[in-house]
Amino acid sequence: MRLIYPENLEDIALGAAVLGGGGGGDPYVARLMGIDALRTYGPVQLVSPDEISDDCLVAASAMIGAPTVMVEKLPKGTEVVDAFLALQMFLDRTIDYTAAAAADGLNSTTPFTVAARLRIPMVDADGLGRAWPEIQMVTPTIHGIAAAPMAIADEKGNASIIDAMNNRWTDRLARTICIEMGSTAMIAAYPMSGRQLKESMMPGTLTRAERIGQHIRQARQQRHNPIEALRELTGGFELFRGKVADVQRRTESGCVCGEATFQGTDRWVGSQLTVRFQNEHLQVVRDGQVGTSVPDLTTVLDAETGEPVTTAGLRYGVRAVILGIPRELPARRLG
Amino acid sequence: MRLIYPENLEDIALGAAVLGGGGGGDPYVARLMGIDALRTYGPVQLVSPDEISDDCLVAASAMIGAPTVMVEKLPKGTEVVDAFLALQMFLDRTIDYTAAAAADGLNSTTPFTVAARLRIPMVDADGLGRAWPEIQMVTPTIHGIAAAPMAIADEKGNASIIDAMNNRWTDRLARTICIEMGSTAMIAAYPMSGRQLKESMMPGTLTRAERIGQHIRQARQQRHNPIEALRELTGGFELFRGKVADVQRRTESGCVCGEATFQGTDRWVGSQLTVRFQNEHLQVVRDGQVGTSVPDLTTVLDAETGEPVTTAGLRYGVRAVILGIPRELPARRLG
Repeated sequence: MRLIYPENLEDIALGAAVLGGGGGGDPYVARLMGIDALRTYGPVQLVSPDEISDDCLVAASAMIGAPTVMVEKLPKGTEVVDAFLALQMFLDRTIDYTAAAAADGLNSTTPFTVAARLRIPMVDADGLGRAWPEIQMVTPTIHGIAAAPMAIADEKGNASIIDAMNNRWTDRLARTICIEMGSTAMIAAYPMSGRQLKESMMPGTLTRAERIGQHIRQARQQRHNPIEALRELTGGFELFRGKVADVQRRTESGCVCGEATFQGTDRWVGSQLTVRFQNEHLQVVRDGQVGTSVPDLTTVLDAETGEPVTTAGLRYGVRAVILGIPRELPARRLG
Repeated sequence: MRLIYPENLEDIALGAAVLGGGGGGDPYVARLMGIDALRTYGPVQLVSPDEISDDCLVAASAMIGAPTVMVEKLPKGTEVVDAFLALQMFLDRTIDYTAAAAADGLNSTTPFTVAARLRIPMVDADGLGRAWPEIQMVTPTIHGIAAAPMAIADEKGNASIIDAMNNRWTDRLARTICIEMGSTAMIAAYPMSGRQLKESMMPGTLTRAERIGQHIRQARQQRHNPIEALRELTGGFELFRGKVADVQRRTESGCVCGEATFQGTDRWVGSQLTVRFQNEHLQVVRDGQVGTSVPDLTTVLDAETGEPVTTAGLRYGVRAVILGIPRELPARRLG
C-alpha cells in the first residue's frame, strides 16, 4: 500500500495517456479531475492485487462515450460516484475497492475520484494495460467475468443499472444509454471478487503509468528529448514524424471513429501515414503498408512537448512523432 | 376482491382495446398472452383500490415500444416477470400488487401475466383510463409520483433499471434501451404506496373495460350490431365510415408514427378522414376539420366484426367505422 498524492497523479495521467494510445479524451481534463479530487478529499491508498483478500468486492470506475464530446462536455465530478453508489445499492453490498477499467488519461484518473470521495482504496490493476473502445474488450471478459451488473450515470442526475445477458450486450445497452445521456457518461462495472481480480486483471498498470510519466517529466526537466526518453524506456520505435494534413472524424454509436492523415517531415518527407481510430488509435498505415495495429500501441506525441495527442486532439497542422510500442515491452521492462 | 378467469380476460382485452384508441398492438396477441398465463397459473385476484392498505407497495406492469413491431416479435411471456423481479431486487422489497399502466389491449392483459406467475393480486386501476404513447403521460406524473426506479427487460435475458431525474427522462432512457432491445420490451414502473395509488390512479378501469367487452360480445351473440351497441354504451358518435386508402407509417424513436387516410362509404361518400397516430390514434381530421383529438378517444372498429383496429392493424382496404368517444363518458356511465 502506498498513498497517491496530486504529484503522483500528474505522472500517472501522463503515463496512462501514453499507454492509452490516443484514448481517454483530453489528458489535461483528466489530470485536473483527479487532482481536484485528491486536493479536496486527501490522498488515495493504492494497493497491489496481492494485498487484497480473495473475498473482497471490487468494481471498476470508468468513463464511456466519445472522447471528442468530453472535451466540450466536461464531467461534473459527481457522476462517477453516483454510478458507483447505484451499483452498490443494486448489489446491496458495500464495494471494498475500486480499480481502473483501462489505462488512458481519463480512465486512469477517474477511479481516484471515486476512491477519494468514498474513502476506499484503489487496486493497482486495470482491465487491459492499454485502452479499449468497447466495454467487453478487457481481460476479465476472457476469464468469463460479467461486466454486469453495471451502473451508468450522467451529470444531470440520471442513473441506470444494466444487467445484460453477456458483456457484448452490456456494451450495446450502455452505449445507447450513453448516447441519450449526451454521448459521454460515467460507469461502475465488472463487480468481482478479489480472487477474480487477481486471476483476470492486469496488475501494476498504475505504477507502470507513473514510471512512464515520471520518465517523461524528468527528461523535460533535464532538457533531454522526452520522446527519445519514452522510446528508450518502452522499447518503442519511431513510426513517423509529420504534420496532420487531414482528419476525417465522425461521432457514431457513441464512439468517435475516423482517420487522420499525416504528411511526413524530417526523414519522412514524401511519405504519408494514416492513423485509423475508434476512440483509440487502432491501426496505422504508412505508404500503403500496415504499421502497428492493436494490441500494439500507436502513440502520437506532440513533436515539441512530447505530450500524448489523443484522438480528440488530432487536428490540421499538429506536428507529431508517432511511436509504435510493442504491447508486451512496457509490461516486461517496467514490471 | 374477485377472481379473474380466462373468460373475463377475453372481455377485458376487448374492452381495453376500445379504450386504448388504437394502442396496445394486436388485440389477439394480447388476449392469448393473458389467457395463457391464467390457464397455466390459475385465476388472478382483482382488488379495488379501496381494498388495499395505504402502506402497501404497488408497481405497474406494461409494454413499451412500437406496437407494429410486437405484431411480428411476440413477447415470450417471461420478460415482464423479469422486469418486475428486477425492480423488486433494486427496491430490496417485495412488491405487493401490480396494476395496469394504461388501458389498451396488451397493457390490460400484461399485468395478469405478472400477477398469475408471481401469485400476487392486481389492483383494478390504471394510469390514464386510456392509452398513452410515452411513459410520463399518466395521472401519477401530475401527482408528482416518479416513474423511476423502473425496470425494463427483453426476451433475450437483458434487463436494466432506470433511475432518472424526472419522468420525461425515464421515458427517454427507457425508449432508447427499448430500441436497442428490438423496439419492444416489457417494463415495471411507477412503484408507489397504496395511498399514492388511491390519490393518483384511475380506479375501476379493468371493470369498465370488462363491461365494454361484455357488451360487445353479447351484442354479437344476440346478432345485434356490436358497433351500435358500443356507441350507445359509451355515449360515442359515428365520426366516419370508410375504407383505408393510404397509410403512412414510420417506426421512429421506438414508436410508430404516421397517418391513415380513409375514403368515405355509406353516408360519407365523397368525404375523407385522416387519423394521425403515435402508437395510439391521437387526432382525426375530417375534410380538413379536426374531429376528435386526445384526451377524447378515437376508436377504429372493423365494420363487419366490430373488433377494434389498432394502429398496427391499419392497412389498405380495411373497412371501418370510426367512433369518437368523449373521454369522460365511459367513466361516468360505467362507474
